Amino acid sequence: MSPAPWALSHKFEIKKILKFTILNKCSTNRARLCRLETAHGGFETPAFIPVGTQGSVKALSPEDLEDAGVKIILANTYHLYLRPGHGIVEKLGGLHAFMNWKGPILTDSGGYQVYSLAKLRSISEQGVTFQSHIDGSRHFLGPKEAMEIQRALGGDIIMAFDECAPYPSDYDYVLKSVRLTSLWAKRCLEQERGKTQDVFGIIQGGVYLDLREMSARELVGMDFDGYAFGGLSVGEDMETRQKIIRETIDFLPDDKPVYLMGVGTPEDIVEAVPLGLDMFDCVMPTRNARNGTLFTSRGKVTIKNASYAEDAGPVDEECGCYTCSHYSRAYLRHLFMANELLAYRLNSIHNVYYYAHLMESIRNAIMDNRYEEFRNNFYKIRDSE
Amino acid sequence: MSPAPWALSHKFEIKKILKFTILNKCSTNRARLCRLETAHGGFETPAFIPVGTQGSVKALSPEDLEDAGVKIILANTYHLYLRPGHGIVEKLGGLHAFMNWKGPILTDSGGYQVYSLAKLRSISEQGVTFQSHIDGSRHFLGPKEAMEIQRALGGDIIMAFDECAPYPSDYDYVLKSVRLTSLWAKRCLEQERGKTQDVFGIIQGGVYLDLREMSARELVGMDFDGYAFGGLSVGEDMETRQKIIRETIDFLPDDKPVYLMGVGTPEDIVEAVPLGLDMFDCVMPTRNARNGTLFTSRGKVTIKNASYAEDAGPVDEECGCYTCSHYSRAYLRHLFMANELLAYRLNSIHNVYYYAHLMESIRNAIMDNRYEEFRNNFYKIRDSE
Repeated sequence: MSPAPWALSHKFEIKKILKFTILNKCSTNRARLCRLETAHGGFETPAFIPVGTQGSVKALSPEDLEDAGVKIILANTYHLYLRPGHGIVEKLGGLHAFMNWKGPILTDSGGYQVYSLAKLRSISEQGVTFQSHIDGSRHFLGPKEAMEIQRALGGDIIMAFDECAPYPSDYDYVLKSVRLTSLWAKRCLEQERGKTQDVFGIIQGGVYLDLREMSARELVGMDFDGYAFGGLSVGEDMETRQKIIRETIDFLPDDKPVYLMGVGTPEDIVEAVPLGLDMFDCVMPTRNARNGTLFTSRGKVTIKNASYAEDAGPVDEECGCYTCSHYSRAYLRHLFMANELLAYRLNSIHNVYYYAHLMESIRNAIMDNRYEEFRNNFYKIRDSE
Repeated sequence: MSPAPWALSHKFEIKKILKFTILNKCSTNRARLCRLETAHGGFETPAFIPVGTQGSVKALSPEDLEDAGVKIILANTYHLYLRPGHGIVEKLGGLHAFMNWKGPILTDSGGYQVYSLAKLRSISEQGVTFQSHIDGSRHFLGPKEAMEIQRALGGDIIMAFDECAPYPSDYDYVLKSVRLTSLWAKRCLEQERGKTQDVFGIIQGGVYLDLREMSARELVGMDFDGYAFGGLSVGEDMETRQKIIRETIDFLPDDKPVYLMGVGTPEDIVEAVPLGLDMFDCVMPTRNARNGTLFTSRGKVTIKNASYAEDAGPVDEECGCYTCSHYSRAYLRHLFMANELLAYRLNSIHNVYYYAHLMESIRNAIMDNRYEEFRNNFYKIRDSE
């Protein structure tokens, strides 16, 4: 009798650093306050992870991130593999030393970028052959390569290499994608990794609840250090996404962190936390900042609006970020209209702070078991504008 | 008998804040160490003034500038008049409050930008009609307008509106330009200005020594708070520029600061200081930074060079700036190649620090009366690379 496909054959020692502790649970929903420890420090969840795709959270320095309350950042395997190359990052002492970030780093596996950015993707059981979005050069990325790259980068939390099915995809395609993702997940766990690196499995299955269940069950059978929802926030509506998470999360162990990849808006996060999700990442705060869209408790501010031309007030009266403490809407509008580089940094500082402090409010609400009150208030303030 | 053209009719009270003190003079050349006090603090000269054209030294925050050792910055009348408009800056509390810079600000008069940037320039005795380089709209700027704008901006040191002749220009054109500049200088002094604003006259005269003398004598007759060399670094060779300064500076009073506008490279400054110049401004440190060219004591570093791809060392081993203290050449190269916004900031911090500390070395050398030794060493280290 052959072993189950996810029976693992570890050939190396793993020293567990990542420690996940549940500090409090809401009584009326699945929202939970937890603490996650890594070799580069710990952080409380629910947590938002700003995206530093190419080894830099765009326009921000590590000090900017710390000052904004950021505890953990994400970097992309796909991008850093292509440029400057993971070998160079490793030679320079790994990603922490390379980019001067002392806190935890999560690296994604490249699965999603190969699907969303690369050209001429061709998938086999071994992995994906693709063309670089930078120069069209041909590359191959599979579970083995993704783990080797992530080992070289040295992130604290690394992700299994997955196959993200396009949205929409038919059932048969998604079924194949789930099977491939499970096979690759097993291979990822068998690959040697850094002694202090913990690895999360990525649940696929598109919008098909039984495939989500299948993906979750197979990954849980492999005993990952955490689980992530992949293939969401790719075009499906919020109700569908909520339903998938609600129906799938029951198959995940209570004592492991659950990470919703690529999500999302403040509303998305406020709605996802009570489903039991612990971690989130999205380019939204930094990308919107560079487009001049600023988040506030009362809704979005489009800084180029002529109405701000002489506005001496800060972006958000209640915000304690560096930008709101020192600059007027009028100055931020001027910088943005004049294409000044400082605009991107000041706007990004504000948005990243907004997200970090939204998460802090969420954690405080869970601690005090008043999440519903928090959520009602979140929408009430927004609607009052 | 009509009064001399520069006989002034002040109708307003000027409270002298600007105080210029000579601290030391070199024994072998005209280099001098001085201190200049303004309503927003003082600084020692020779000093370099980074350029914040649109109310922002590109890519840098006020704290970045302070940390790099910058004491005074420059902003452009022409740009701020066009966008966001000096009325808006005034309503927001003036340029210091608008851009959150607490130290001294020097504003130029717009004369040079009208010459170098604007389209369809048409000059009369009243001023210049021109088209905006941003949107082609028609505007008029003369001595009256330039002073009104600079009053609204609220800089500590403001500049008389001048006519910068193109290079090369024939003698007759430059003669007219000098006469117009003197007429406008007189009108500028007659305009009301802020109680703590001091105004510098700008010496024109192209490459014609007798016209430079004429311009200097006429302006000195009007008793400005300081004098600037305009119309240099516009295409003439260094020898010509040195000769013009050397021959003209004798006509300027010893007890007033002398400012060489738009200069220049580190070498330009090292050569200009012993001629008796106190102040310099140039976009070079910030513009070069954005182009990936970094200044070091051993010469320029072109950060995109492949030789830096795995270079773990800082841009300059002897540099104490934030960038050199925290990042490798390899990381800076990666950021630059990947078009990361952080590249512009980190490079700009380094170059602005380089200039600020070059000036500090210059001041120390003057203090210790060893400028020739300093200058020899400056070239020796450079040639050793």
